Amino acid sequence: MTFNSTLESIKSYEAGKPIELVVREYGIDKKDIVKLASNENPFGCSPKVKEAVKAIIDNMALYPDDSMVKLKNGLTKKYGIEADELIIGAGSDQVIEFAIHAKAHEGTSVLMNSVTFAMYEIYAKQVGAKILRTASREHNMKEFYALYQEHKPSIIFLCTPNNPTGDALDAQEMREFIQKIDSDTLVIVDGAYMEYARFKDGSKGVDPRELISQFDNVLFLGTFSKAYGLGGMRVGYGIARSPIIKALYKVRPPFNITTLSLEAASVALEDESFVNECIADNFEQMKRYEAFAASKKISIIDSYTNFVTLSLPEGKNSSQIAQELLKKGMIVRDLSSYGLNAIRVTIGTSIQNDRFFTLAEPLL
Amino acid sequence: MTFNSTLESIKSYEAGKPIELVVREYGIDKKDIVKLASNENPFGCSPKVKEAVKAIIDNMALYPDDSMVKLKNGLTKKYGIEADELIIGAGSDQVIEFAIHAKAHEGTSVLMNSVTFAMYEIYAKQVGAKILRTASREHNMKEFYALYQEHKPSIIFLCTPNNPTGDALDAQEMREFIQKIDSDTLVIVDGAYMEYARFKDGSKGVDPRELISQFDNVLFLGTFSKAYGLGGMRVGYGIARSPIIKALYKVRPPFNITTLSLEAASVALEDESFVNECIADNFEQMKRYEAFAASKKISIIDSYTNFVTLSLPEGKNSSQIAQELLKKGMIVRDLSSYGLNAIRVTIGTSIQNDRFFTLAEPLL
Repeated sequence: MTFNSTLESIKSYEAGKPIELVVREYGIDKKDIVKLASNENPFGCSPKVKEAVKAIIDNMALYPDDSMVKLKNGLTKKYGIEADELIIGAGSDQVIEFAIHAKAHEGTSVLMNSVTFAMYEIYAKQVGAKILRTASREHNMKEFYALYQEHKPSIIFLCTPNNPTGDALDAQEMREFIQKIDSDTLVIVDGAYMEYARFKDGSKGVDPRELISQFDNVLFLGTFSKAYGLGGMRVGYGIARSPIIKALYKVRPPFNITTLSLEAASVALEDESFVNECIADNFEQMKRYEAFAASKKISIIDSYTNFVTLSLPEGKNSSQIAQELLKKGMIVRDLSSYGLNAIRVTIGTSIQNDRFFTLAEPLL
Repeated sequence: MTFNSTLESIKSYEAGKPIELVVREYGIDKKDIVKLASNENPFGCSPKVKEAVKAIIDNMALYPDDSMVKLKNGLTKKYGIEADELIIGAGSDQVIEFAIHAKAHEGTSVLMNSVTFAMYEIYAKQVGAKILRTASREHNMKEFYALYQEHKPSIIFLCTPNNPTGDALDAQEMREFIQKIDSDTLVIVDGAYMEYARFKDGSKGVDPRELISQFDNVLFLGTFSKAYGLGGMRVGYGIARSPIIKALYKVRPPFNITTLSLEAASVALEDESFVNECIADNFEQMKRYEAFAASKKISIIDSYTNFVTLSLPEGKNSSQIAQELLKKGMIVRDLSSYGLNAIRVTIGTSIQNDRFFTLAEPLL
C-alpha cells in the first residue's frame, strides 16, 4: 500500500525514556531509578488536584465536557482574556499541530530556531511544508528576520524559554521583532516553560494578554505539563485573537481532553502557591548544578526553565555519558540528536539531584 | 490572517450535550438529568479500573509510557495479534485521523455510507479529500462497489455496527466486498460497537485477527469508550498489517494517551466478565425499547449496539421531541443533522430507561 509522500521524511519524536522501559531493559528495580529526562515537576501536582480527580473517578465513563467550561473559566480568569481567545489541546503539542494543520501546507515554509523543540519540524513535515532554521544555537532575531524576508514563511516559531537549551528571549526584543512581521505570518510563541522564566527574570516574561492585544498574528502556547506537574494528563493551551482560535477549532478533534484531565488542570489553577513553591525550589536546586558544572569546567547554558543543559567538553561524548548514567538508573536526555554534544538534566528534588551528582561525578 | 482553504468547508462535530451544559442552560438539578445521548456504558467501567487508577494518582506528573507496553500486551493477547499490528489512539477517532492524514489528500476521495459517523467526513475535509457517499440508509455493498469502481477512492469506511443507526453488516458479505477491492485502497472497518454485535449475532461479528490475515489493506478500529465504559478516558485502537501501522505511527503525536487512561484501559481488559454482564443487560433492556416503539407504531432500526434509533412518523419532529425531552432533563440525540427524522437513545440502566419511557410517553 502506498501512503502520502510527505510521510517519507518524517522521523518520529524521541521521547525521554520512561521508567518502565529502564526497568524492563536494564532490570533495575523501579525504586532505584531516577528520571530527570522529561522536565516533569519532581514534586508532582498539587495534593488538591489528586483529591479532585479521585472524587470524580466515577465519571470515567462519561465523555468530557467538550465545551471545557470549567477549565476555560480558570484560564480566562488567570490571563484576563476572553473565552474565544483560548483553545485547549492535549498538551501544547496538540495546539502546535492545530496551527500547522490550519495554516501550513505544501509550498509554504515554517521558520524555527536551529536547535528547538522537535515537534515543530515533525508536524510541519506532515503537511509537506519546508523547514527553515537559523544558524545560531540561541534565538538570533537578526537571522530570523533575514530568513523571514527571504522566504515569507507561513509560521514562525519562537520557543522562549527554548527547549532543549533553556535560554530565553528578552520579551522587548521579541516584540520588536514581531512588529516587523506581516500580519499574514503566524508567530507562535511557545511558552511551555514561561512560569519559570517569569519567576527568574521579569524581562523574559511574556504576558499573553498584552501580546495578543498588541498583535493580531500571534499565538501564545502554555502547558500544564511542566510547572503544574501534570505531564501525564496532556493539557496545554493556545491564546490568540479569536479569528485564529476559530481556525484552530476547525481542526480540533472533539473530546481531545479526558474527563479526568479537565478536572486536574482546572483544580491545578486554583493552587498557584503550590506551583510557586515548586518553582522557587527549582531555582534553589539549580544553583547546585551551576556549582557542579563550574567545578567540572563544564559549560552550562543559563537556564530559565526546570532543566539545565550541560555542554560537554571535547573528549566526553554525550551519548556515552547518558548511557553510563542509564545503566545506573539515572535517566537524562542525550542531545546528540539535536546536533549538540550535551546532556539535558531536569532539576529534581534535592535527593534526586544528590543522586545525579554522585553518579555523574566519576563520569564528567 | 488567511488559513488553509480546506478549512472553509469543515463543519465542527456536534457532540451529545454534556450534563454540565444542561445544568447551566436549563437550570435543572444535576441529579435530575439523565444523559442517553453519547452511548456511554450506563454502568460505567469495572470497579477494578477505578481502584487501579486511584492507585497511580501520584503518576499524573509523569509523561505516559509512550511505548504503551502494558496496554499493548493486553490487546495483543486479547486479539492474538503482534504488537506491530496495533496502534493506540485517543479514542478510535484519533486512529481515523491518523489514517486519513497518512493516506488521503487533495485529489483523492473517501467513500462512506450515506448516514454514518460524522468524523470520517470532518477529517477527510481537513486534508481536502473529496467525500463520496452511497444513497441507501444501510450499508449497501453494491452501491459501495459501484462508487469504488467509478472513483477508486483512497479510503473506504465501513462502520459496523453503524453509528448512528445501529444496524450491522453481515461479516461474510463484508469480506466478499473487500476481496474485490484493490490493495492500494485502505478499507477501514470501524468496530466501535463490535462487542455488542458479536454478543447478539455471531454472523455480524468481525474478528480483527482473521480480517488482517486475509487482507493487507484493512484497518480494524476498536474502542474503550463504549462497552468498556471509558468514554471519558479517550482510548481506542487500530489493528492492521504492520506496514499500515508503521505509516499511521508516522502521524501519531507522542504521548497521545494520558498516564491514567493507559492504566484504565489496561485494567479494563482484565475484567471482561464485567463488560459481558453490561452487554447482556443492554440487550435485555433493549427489548423494552422495542416494545415501546411497537406500542407507539414507531419504526425502530434493528440494533446491534447500545443504542436504538427511533424513526419518527410524519407529524412528529425529531428536533422538537429532543428539545422537549431536554427541558425535562432527558438528553437524547436528535438525528436531523444526519438528514433523519429520528432520535437516537442510548440504552441506559433500568431506572434511566423507566425515566425515558415516562417522559417520552406523552410526546411520542
